[in-house]
Amino acid sequence: MESRDVGGGVEKGDGISYPDPDPVNETKQRKRNKEEEKVTMEELFESKEVPTWQDQLTLRAFVVSFILGILFSFIVMKLNLTTGIIPSLNISAGLLGYFFVKTWTKFLHKSGILKQPFTRQENTVIQTCVVATSGIAFSGGFGSYLFGMSETIAKQATEANDPENVKNPTLGWMIGFLFVVSFIGLFSVVPLRKIMIIDYKLIYPSGTATAHLINSFHTPQGAKLAKKQVRALGKFFSFSFLWGFFQWFFTAERDCGFINFPTFGLKAYDNSFYFDFSATYVGVGMICPYIINVSLLVGSILSWGLMWPLIDAKKGDWYSANLEPKSLHGLQGYKVFIAIAMILGDGLYNFIKVMIQTVLGLIYQIRYKDSTIVLPTSDRPANHIPTSLSKDDQRRTQLFLKDQIPTWVAVAGYTLLAAISIATIPHLHPAQMLAIFTIGAWAGASNGGVLAGLAACGVMMNIVSTASDLMQDFKTGYLTLASPRSMFVSQVIGTAMGCVIAPCVFWVFFKAFDDLGITGSEYPAPNALIFRSMAILGVEGFSSLPKHCLTLCYVFFAAAILINAVRDIVGKKVASFIPLPMAMAIPFYLGSFFTIDMCLGSLILFVWEKIDKAKAKAFGPAVASGLICGDGIWTLPASVLALAGVKPPICMKFLSRATNTKVDKYLGG
Amino acid sequence: MESRDVGGGVEKGDGISYPDPDPVNETKQRKRNKEEEKVTMEELFESKEVPTWQDQLTLRAFVVSFILGILFSFIVMKLNLTTGIIPSLNISAGLLGYFFVKTWTKFLHKSGILKQPFTRQENTVIQTCVVATSGIAFSGGFGSYLFGMSETIAKQATEANDPENVKNPTLGWMIGFLFVVSFIGLFSVVPLRKIMIIDYKLIYPSGTATAHLINSFHTPQGAKLAKKQVRALGKFFSFSFLWGFFQWFFTAERDCGFINFPTFGLKAYDNSFYFDFSATYVGVGMICPYIINVSLLVGSILSWGLMWPLIDAKKGDWYSANLEPKSLHGLQGYKVFIAIAMILGDGLYNFIKVMIQTVLGLIYQIRYKDSTIVLPTSDRPANHIPTSLSKDDQRRTQLFLKDQIPTWVAVAGYTLLAAISIATIPHLHPAQMLAIFTIGAWAGASNGGVLAGLAACGVMMNIVSTASDLMQDFKTGYLTLASPRSMFVSQVIGTAMGCVIAPCVFWVFFKAFDDLGITGSEYPAPNALIFRSMAILGVEGFSSLPKHCLTLCYVFFAAAILINAVRDIVGKKVASFIPLPMAMAIPFYLGSFFTIDMCLGSLILFVWEKIDKAKAKAFGPAVASGLICGDGIWTLPASVLALAGVKPPICMKFLSRATNTKVDKYLGG
Repeated sequence: MESRDVGGGVEKGDGISYPDPDPVNETKQRKRNKEEEKVTMEELFESKEVPTWQDQLTLRAFVVSFILGILFSFIVMKLNLTTGIIPSLNISAGLLGYFFVKTWTKFLHKSGILKQPFTRQENTVIQTCVVATSGIAFSGGFGSYLFGMSETIAKQATEANDPENVKNPTLGWMIGFLFVVSFIGLFSVVPLRKIMIIDYKLIYPSGTATAHLINSFHTPQGAKLAKKQVRALGKFFSFSFLWGFFQWFFTAERDCGFINFPTFGLKAYDNSFYFDFSATYVGVGMICPYIINVSLLVGSILSWGLMWPLIDAKKGDWYSANLEPKSLHGLQGYKVFIAIAMILGDGLYNFIKVMIQTVLGLIYQIRYKDSTIVLPTSDRPANHIPTSLSKDDQRRTQLFLKDQIPTWVAVAGYTLLAAISIATIPHLHPAQMLAIFTIGAWAGASNGGVLAGLAACGVMMNIVSTASDLMQDFKTGYLTLASPRSMFVSQVIGTAMGCVIAPCVFWVFFKAFDDLGITGSEYPAPNALIFRSMAILGVEGFSSLPKHCLTLCYVFFAAAILINAVRDIVGKKVASFIPLPMAMAIPFYLGSFFTIDMCLGSLILFVWEKIDKAKAKAFGPAVASGLICGDGIWTLPASVLALAGVKPPICMKFLSRATNTKVDKYLGG
Repeated sequence: MESRDVGGGVEKGDGISYPDPDPVNETKQRKRNKEEEKVTMEELFESKEVPTWQDQLTLRAFVVSFILGILFSFIVMKLNLTTGIIPSLNISAGLLGYFFVKTWTKFLHKSGILKQPFTRQENTVIQTCVVATSGIAFSGGFGSYLFGMSETIAKQATEANDPENVKNPTLGWMIGFLFVVSFIGLFSVVPLRKIMIIDYKLIYPSGTATAHLINSFHTPQGAKLAKKQVRALGKFFSFSFLWGFFQWFFTAERDCGFINFPTFGLKAYDNSFYFDFSATYVGVGMICPYIINVSLLVGSILSWGLMWPLIDAKKGDWYSANLEPKSLHGLQGYKVFIAIAMILGDGLYNFIKVMIQTVLGLIYQIRYKDSTIVLPTSDRPANHIPTSLSKDDQRRTQLFLKDQIPTWVAVAGYTLLAAISIATIPHLHPAQMLAIFTIGAWAGASNGGVLAGLAACGVMMNIVSTASDLMQDFKTGYLTLASPRSMFVSQVIGTAMGCVIAPCVFWVFFKAFDDLGITGSEYPAPNALIFRSMAILGVEGFSSLPKHCLTLCYVFFAAAILINAVRDIVGKKVASFIPLPMAMAIPFYLGSFFTIDMCLGSLILFVWEKIDKAKAKAFGPAVASGLICGDGIWTLPASVLALAGVKPPICMKFLSRATNTKVDKYLGG
């Protein structure tokens, strides 16, 4: 459920596309386009020298990246472990990275000891490094496959929780595993970069957006806007952080505090309809397109408002009434497996669609030798790059091709990795050495097939996401004249930092919050259970599903494909009113509370756009980033407090009238 | 603790001056002054005919007044019964009155059946009538002397709660009592109006401010601003109303809900330091000057932060440890009597000061025949009226003197009142017929002296406040060219409506909220206990006070006088940093929660003024009025719900960590 693209404008299988190209940029882009009637982007920067690739990699850049990497790892980890929905944090990373180095260089400049000015190439290095670092916090699977191996999750899945299929995470093991799997993707794309960026001119939307963002920061106009945006971000960051702090005091136990506020009454609360006062998801809602939030809401109402109550009424008939509340053989099974069916249906449809488009596109490309290939992306207008090479592109291509990465680096990298893998993997999980990479789920449950499946998934996820990150970064580098070499080095360093930081951050969460991963707690890590359930499904088949569950799964699988097909057949205008099946499925197993938050975010943005469209476009993403980051960073002190054994003093409790009378009597007597 | 002035710019004994002259007006005034270099106010209106006094009194005006009268009676009653702090509602009454009739006439105008256009004279009639009606809700003493006679309050005062000194309010009795006492004041000032308004040109700040407000509504510029202000008021009215509605759901029992939110922790909550999320008092805080709110906060910290905890530590030494928590022989006694001492000290100082100033002013006036007398008001710049009669004033004087109220009306009124009194009063409270009017507190407790004292207080309060209201209205009429006759009639009708509406509204509260008047409940009616305690003090002397309480009372009495003297001696600039003793004393017995609300209101206004001073000045009062009115009007449906026996479904409870564990165990087991 992550938002960054896999490459070439192609979306990841999950089909949810968050708007990486920031709206700020659009307005700026328009302004710039007007200017470009006179001067192009690169003419604007003509007077500025491009540093050598070694000079682009400054120490200060990596210090800033390290700090931001830790911060964003906390934010991503929080998102991972609460709902698993992670919006694009490129804008916030961009703004904060720019802000930190700018402040630092300004300070040095005043003291007269500034050796090197802050260039956009250095800015790109920071951005690349931060995104690589925090990317590991997502692709490391701490909210999904990796945590899905643990005992906590295994116990809730009830099936296959024998020791053969359980692997509790330890810090060393996680770091080792990540180091082995995270670099494979990097080396694999290095040889492809010229073909993808120069020859095929693939779009890489988030890479392009990031480049525009960074370029704009370094124009006088853009710098002024960026300053205001940073201020807006800072304001809402503080608000969100303080709000998190305030909430903490009232959360003495699991069912206390604002996150359990029955905003729409206790009955609605029991069906997970309530506003949980999470600044994070209000911010996420502001970043996500309206259609996503509406889809989530439709899914919420369909599932928690309609289906689950109906299925719950069949308790004792469709499934045993004596099951534990979260058993997969009961209602929870319907929630999880129907959601999986819908996600798989959506994923399959989009995978096949994209495959066909890609192949057709390549054929067209090869046949007509057109210099541009535009792969359509489901909800995004394809920014068309002019066919003939512009002056800007000539300069960009020239610089991009100047610093080559020798093929021997890739080959040597692979050799080294192979050597390390052979030496390390047996220690990671001795019994599954081959299974992880080859047999996967075919190993069967008795041989730890569930673990094998999860690990295989993890390997894939890491390879794909680090590879796509690097290609995006190459594109960013191409557009900001940053050298591919410095991009590669920055990505490698960022990934290495991530491989250490992410497990440590997870470890902090794991140790600080003792109900981590338990459904209904503050950090339920819902995707961990989903991933494990999928693995179990792969290993054990459909035999364990409750009555009629399989039928319902088929129905929703088919519905997902159908809805997607309809969306593609009808016009764009009508399609924008048809919900996305992928987004609809998420609240099926997560609950509706975060949907309420996100819809509130949409509402705020909607009203804001009604009042002042230009301002909303320019500052909306900054405000949203502030809300997400502030709340996310609050988890840092919160976990420190938890580790130190400091517990919140007050419980804000919500009791029904009758219960309250009982409690008052008990406390009084 | 009410804000409207007694007359002649002289403040009421309580010394708290709320800013009746609205800031909106000031800006407008400035604009207008610029225009007046060309045209004066009356020249602006020259083209508009002044209707005869009979035509000023339209039916629609009284229908609107009746509706607004009910609304404002609810608002005032709520304020009466929560803290007794009532800000000037002139601006909201003005805006709403203007809005209602304007909408109505616009509608009629479009349908082509408008008989009479909406003039500023008619507007003045509405304003007069609404203020008279809602004024009774204050001067009727439902939060003070009248309710202080009741059993509920008598029980809490512990002293003198024998049947002789208790009179439970009944609807008929209240209406009768009010009719008898409310008109005396009206007739008494009728003969004085020419001397006060024309000859001495007394300022009557709130009358003048209201007149400016109404005049401005009827200029094209002012009408535009008024429209925007009404919109701001409406927006915050809705917000405040909905917030009240939302809060209701979580207030199943007395200690539940947002009004018991331990914002600063449970320890601070026990010492009454918490933000109770009351939109009303945030609004009141926005209307009150900063110094009032700061004084309240200083008083809060001094009393609840310092003195009460210290005195509480003397439990068992200074007073018996086995008393009921709210006994006046214990800590509660210190709170109430120290507050009374400080209020009396402040009141006495200001009474004497004003008396001396008035006498000096009159002597000066008579000796030098200056046409203007400006009685200095403690915190308000005296708007100087030019000495020679301006053109405007000539026209105003001419119209003011045109419609005389014959002296025989006043005489006949008195005769009628005397007759009614003799016939009615024995039924009101047979045993005290004479005592009420003559002997008062001298009757002694055994003869129901406490009741006599309270009733005497009520009679005084009613006479003084209705009389002062009428003088203010004459001033408003003078400045808006409304006839004194129509003012008088409007005031009489308004007072009559108030005499029926106010007791009915109180009756609704009394029947709807069964813990009305009980300290610690939602409507504690704190002044009722204060008034009763004062009456008891008058009757029984100081014998019943706990140890050292009298000494402390002397100290605070002296301190109040001293602080006031210092405020008058040092310059205005320094004085604005010295807290007002009267304001400091209020939280002594009320608690600090409303102080927090009001300081938040100040803070909001302060920040707003920093961001956009002009806008804050123009819209601050409208926003504040919206907050106060919305929350106040919510009590109407709230009491209907309570009367219908519909109780809120949820209790939002705040438990300490330890208690919560106990409760969870109890509920789980």
